[in-house]
Amino acid sequence: MAPSLESHIIPQGAEIGADTLISRSKVTVIGSGNWGSVAAKLIASNTLRLGSFHDEVRMWVFEETLPSGDKLSDVINATNENVKYLPGIKLGKNVVADPDLENAVKDANMLVFVTPHQFMEAICKGLVGKIKTDAEAISLVKGMEVKMEGPHMISTLISEQLGVNCSVLMGANIANEIAQEKFSEATVGYRQNREAAEKWVQLFNTPYFNVTAVQDVEGVELCGTLKNVVAIAAGFVDGLEMGNNTKAAIMRLGLREMKAFSKLLFPSVKDSTFFESCGVADLITTCLGGRNRKVAEAFAKNGGKRSFDELEKEMLQGQKLQGVSTASEVYEVLSHRGWFELFPLFSVVHEICIGRLPPSAIVQYREHKSRSS
Amino acid sequence: MAPSLESHIIPQGAEIGADTLISRSKVTVIGSGNWGSVAAKLIASNTLRLGSFHDEVRMWVFEETLPSGDKLSDVINATNENVKYLPGIKLGKNVVADPDLENAVKDANMLVFVTPHQFMEAICKGLVGKIKTDAEAISLVKGMEVKMEGPHMISTLISEQLGVNCSVLMGANIANEIAQEKFSEATVGYRQNREAAEKWVQLFNTPYFNVTAVQDVEGVELCGTLKNVVAIAAGFVDGLEMGNNTKAAIMRLGLREMKAFSKLLFPSVKDSTFFESCGVADLITTCLGGRNRKVAEAFAKNGGKRSFDELEKEMLQGQKLQGVSTASEVYEVLSHRGWFELFPLFSVVHEICIGRLPPSAIVQYREHKSRSS
Repeated sequence: MAPSLESHIIPQGAEIGADTLISRSKVTVIGSGNWGSVAAKLIASNTLRLGSFHDEVRMWVFEETLPSGDKLSDVINATNENVKYLPGIKLGKNVVADPDLENAVKDANMLVFVTPHQFMEAICKGLVGKIKTDAEAISLVKGMEVKMEGPHMISTLISEQLGVNCSVLMGANIANEIAQEKFSEATVGYRQNREAAEKWVQLFNTPYFNVTAVQDVEGVELCGTLKNVVAIAAGFVDGLEMGNNTKAAIMRLGLREMKAFSKLLFPSVKDSTFFESCGVADLITTCLGGRNRKVAEAFAKNGGKRSFDELEKEMLQGQKLQGVSTASEVYEVLSHRGWFELFPLFSVVHEICIGRLPPSAIVQYREHKSRSS
Repeated sequence: MAPSLESHIIPQGAEIGADTLISRSKVTVIGSGNWGSVAAKLIASNTLRLGSFHDEVRMWVFEETLPSGDKLSDVINATNENVKYLPGIKLGKNVVADPDLENAVKDANMLVFVTPHQFMEAICKGLVGKIKTDAEAISLVKGMEVKMEGPHMISTLISEQLGVNCSVLMGANIANEIAQEKFSEATVGYRQNREAAEKWVQLFNTPYFNVTAVQDVEGVELCGTLKNVVAIAAGFVDGLEMGNNTKAAIMRLGLREMKAFSKLLFPSVKDSTFFESCGVADLITTCLGGRNRKVAEAFAKNGGKRSFDELEKEMLQGQKLQGVSTASEVYEVLSHRGWFELFPLFSVVHEICIGRLPPSAIVQYREHKSRSS
């Protein structure tokens, strides 16, 4: 066999395998829900195509037994489809489902975290000492918690627990639309390592999924969380049938508060991040569709007489809305820091959610404030 | 009668009328269409309330004879309603309709221009030498022309023709929603004179209509025009049923091109202007509703087989879409300056409008471009 181009640069006599030869990176996706499966599909199309990655993409599956009695991971490997969370979509033959977390990560150079946020702490604990020390991580997990002393970023949790550099990927990303290869965009937020960020872009970018990297991990990650509070506000406007002017105004005020809140907590956050997919585009998608908007619309239609708890049970089979809990967390920060005046929209969303104010307060609060830009 | 507070500062022996006494400004609205009538209503509520304005608001009416045989201006003055362009809404008893342009403007200190843009040149010509030399003007007119050598701003036309300072007011402003006093926002863009801008804010701002001033007349005015090109793109996405991700992505790319185009033409344009109501909020409103979006949607649904001319005739009773002509004008600038690479979305919108590319090109163009942020 003719030597490959790359082999010319290998020192004479070196005894190395084909992978190390051109230092191909191995990728593991930790999570196999709807978004995790789509991420695996995107990644798998690129690892096949690009020489800098190992073809195989390992996907850790939280094992479940399907109604048929089969294990989910077995069915994924047999059919190349996640029949439970992304039915009808081929993931790529180079995606290998693995129910053993420790085994799934042990050789990985690049770790993609994409699980529900409430599992992240336990998963990180379980991974301590099990991963390569020079691995790079990226978080696609939305919904970090905002504690009184400030936000608990999931990228920070990963970095601190596992001692690895962690970027984030956020954007206007309804998983099923990307699975159907409809055009969309996303933003990689990175801390310092531009080279690692470019590698993440290579790994995710496809003709129908355009990825851009910005050096602003906190800005990108906060966008992914705070937009859900604005989506609740947009849902109230929809429920009150206030029209497109008002909805656009509330979305704009929300974007402004997202920016101001992020910058007060992290002075390094950049204005330009809010023009990226993770900012204005994700906000638009979330305020047009999305379950936060939908349940808030129902809440306002009922004049606040049926609680979010009740509506969530009915509409989401008991799942909790991110936006309602984030609004409550943000409210605590505002209270703790004396910032209510600076964030009238965020404040009023929480007060409506807990029934202290009627849904119509979503616009009335503006009428008693002096203007500010 | 007890002397008013203001009279204390009047020099002894001064012989002046009550208006000059506290130098109340007289306001004339030039235009009485849908948006002009709403503007008159907003203004009239403030001139009554605030001591710094003369109560009466004069509104120039392009005279029409109604089917009843009555003159439009007579009916407005008799009923306090613009029965043709804003039926059912009381304008305020202090609004006086006047079909004589010269008479309407002769005492005015503040001139509000709000006519269709194609009438502006003739109106300005007719006003030369007829207005107070120290009058302040503001333009609410959307749809300036973009010529090969750059945009012909309507604020510039007014300033140059009449020798007065001219600000602009733009925003997410569907006139009928504001007439119903639903909450919305607007942006005043001013050139130098901050004091004049604050007076415009006072004149327009109400509890349900929040106005903010920014020193960026070109940025604000360009937003009001360029957003219509993006609305055409958004309409194509809707017609192709590509979903919310894609629509949000196209709106974001459009906002980015609006910003880049404005800044290349006027380096003084500020990024922050695009976060104001005239920027992101007006873009959202226009891409959710609006006739540009609607006709573009129909165009895409028909696979581009029925021309815009044909659809406009059918859907708009022969009225022309702003977005289609602006896209063509912008395309000329791009061609003249060699900027196609910098503005792929603006370019492709025009090429779809004229049938050179199919509607589906609205997303495909991204697939053949290298990424750029």
